[in-house]
Amino acid sequence: MTTPASAILIIATSETDANLYYATRFIAPDSFVFVQLNGRKLLLMSDLEVDRAKSQAKVDDVLSLSHLLKAARRRGVTSPGLLDALDEVLRPQQVKRLVVPSSFPVAIADELRQHGYEVTPKRDPFFESRMIKSAEEIAAITATQRATEEATAVLVNMIRQSEIQGEELWLRNKPLTSEVLRKLLHVTLLGMDCIGQHSIIAGGDQACDPHQIGTGVLKAHRPIVLDIFPQSATTRYFADMSRTVLKGTPSPQVVKMYAAVQEGQEIAFRMLKAGVNGQTVHNAILKSFDAQGFSTGEVNGRIQGFFHGTGHGVGLEIHEPPRISAAPDTLQTGQVVTVEPGLYYPGHGGIRLEDMVVITETGCRNLTTFPKLLQLD
Amino acid sequence: MTTPASAILIIATSETDANLYYATRFIAPDSFVFVQLNGRKLLLMSDLEVDRAKSQAKVDDVLSLSHLLKAARRRGVTSPGLLDALDEVLRPQQVKRLVVPSSFPVAIADELRQHGYEVTPKRDPFFESRMIKSAEEIAAITATQRATEEATAVLVNMIRQSEIQGEELWLRNKPLTSEVLRKLLHVTLLGMDCIGQHSIIAGGDQACDPHQIGTGVLKAHRPIVLDIFPQSATTRYFADMSRTVLKGTPSPQVVKMYAAVQEGQEIAFRMLKAGVNGQTVHNAILKSFDAQGFSTGEVNGRIQGFFHGTGHGVGLEIHEPPRISAAPDTLQTGQVVTVEPGLYYPGHGGIRLEDMVVITETGCRNLTTFPKLLQLD
Repeated sequence: MTTPASAILIIATSETDANLYYATRFIAPDSFVFVQLNGRKLLLMSDLEVDRAKSQAKVDDVLSLSHLLKAARRRGVTSPGLLDALDEVLRPQQVKRLVVPSSFPVAIADELRQHGYEVTPKRDPFFESRMIKSAEEIAAITATQRATEEATAVLVNMIRQSEIQGEELWLRNKPLTSEVLRKLLHVTLLGMDCIGQHSIIAGGDQACDPHQIGTGVLKAHRPIVLDIFPQSATTRYFADMSRTVLKGTPSPQVVKMYAAVQEGQEIAFRMLKAGVNGQTVHNAILKSFDAQGFSTGEVNGRIQGFFHGTGHGVGLEIHEPPRISAAPDTLQTGQVVTVEPGLYYPGHGGIRLEDMVVITETGCRNLTTFPKLLQLD
Repeated sequence: MTTPASAILIIATSETDANLYYATRFIAPDSFVFVQLNGRKLLLMSDLEVDRAKSQAKVDDVLSLSHLLKAARRRGVTSPGLLDALDEVLRPQQVKRLVVPSSFPVAIADELRQHGYEVTPKRDPFFESRMIKSAEEIAAITATQRATEEATAVLVNMIRQSEIQGEELWLRNKPLTSEVLRKLLHVTLLGMDCIGQHSIIAGGDQACDPHQIGTGVLKAHRPIVLDIFPQSATTRYFADMSRTVLKGTPSPQVVKMYAAVQEGQEIAFRMLKAGVNGQTVHNAILKSFDAQGFSTGEVNGRIQGFFHGTGHGVGLEIHEPPRISAAPDTLQTGQVVTVEPGLYYPGHGGIRLEDMVVITETGCRNLTTFPKLLQLD
């Protein structure tokens, strides 16, 4: 047997740390310890979680933290802590080097270094395999996407059924607000076991801040950006979709913006395949926008045009590698990425269209089936 | 003006980092930079978020990351990154020492150290003031608690209305499952703008793992633990409550366990006040359990009895300092903590009762109004 050069170590909450959940498929509300050593996955768990971890976690062994602390005490450590328990696992295997996620807590890293370990943070993708989705993962993302589409259809129908009163949209004798639609959306999603948070339903110039979720009464004749990105409570996989709709009559400029954004998506769909650099795709869309007079930059101290990335990976996190953006990043078969160009001009509002696609050897496959229609009759 | 010795630095996602949300009251889906320097709070934001941060964040100044990168380029840095942008803010103020949360990402800490900064992680409570709840924060926690109680009442009523068929609980000609109740609970909570996740509805021996959420058909004559801890989507403050109920006839041992747990809570309510050590309270409950024959320890390799803490702080996180547990921790006026003793014995099941109280100078004030009743008629 050769001495292992290193072990992987994660200490985090799997509720918020997708790498830890990916490695263990175990959800716990408090922080726990994951070690990967000689190809074996180990968990160190408190008395509170040890039995549940044994039955639920997809790992090779679950060790009791209190047993390890007892062993450390027998070894002569007077008041042993987490690191002494870890020593019990790592020392017998002569592990000196620990590879940790770049998000690993600095306080614990400092302590480990004082204990004589070499701690090497590794940037995301921490597990390269997380970027390449298995058939099962694509099925999970697609299922969340179907729920997203069903819930978005409810919203679009309500906007379609609304009536124009002055400049406002009204439904059943009440003003139709972003808040009412958001609550309905989230309840609809929950009925399908999906959790929606911060869903964007932003009308008019509110949408010019792409992360503004939207508030107040929706306006007639102005574009409304719907950006819906729930997580399945069961599988924990996200989906992500944006549509822009309008009740009333769009201005000629908004119609032109919508067509440009839709063409921006098509440019990406044509270019995307394994081996392509995301940066090339992003720049092609920017160039197309520029050619149509939709330039990007600051005007009166406020950024406008197309000033976010074209896309990002989707999986156990809503934003994960790879990126399709101004920074280089080579796409690979099996990656699931969004394609979401947008144009934002104060006075006209925002337009964004977003689909999710799987990268293949020869192109990309769209996971999104929801129609694209600006003007609702 | 004196040279500042240090600045506070947080780089995180406010969606998951409660310290960052506490400091800024700003929610963004991606990581951003917070600096506290000379008593002033600053944010460094990407183009995507800069305008929204200016209008929503409770800070003194919002700086544009792209402007700072341009300034670094003018200073001669060829391809400036996040740390060069930070230098633009920190160097003119001669900041050398950075205080960061213990969870601060090690990869960025290492880079900062290479840039010549001294990086000092500080353990939680990072902001001591976060432990002491203002009247506004107590009102927010209480509001989440009221929603929790309303939603729990819906569950308890359904269990009450169920019928005993053989050993199972049935409602409207269908078996009553943990899953059905959990979905109903979460939809009810969402109607009150609260997000419930991993809510525990665990019957019989399932509850002997205190974090097992519960699955399948609920059984008659067996205790059912309800542990409900939603977060308000509006204020982001949590509440936390547990009740144990039973449909049918409890065994004499379960009745005795319930009485012991309720008395355990009363011991805490009598002892808790500012200046008291949480450890003393926890040990008093353990002692009371022992005296009644409810011992804690491993039996056949499985832990049983009372093997979790008595309580924890509640606020922007569901588990935050202080702790009432085997470790010493002095309680202070204005802290909001749970009081949640429990007893777990395979064969009998689990009993847990949990209220939230505010620590005062002279005692504690219970924020929970939900009744405690084991047997539902």
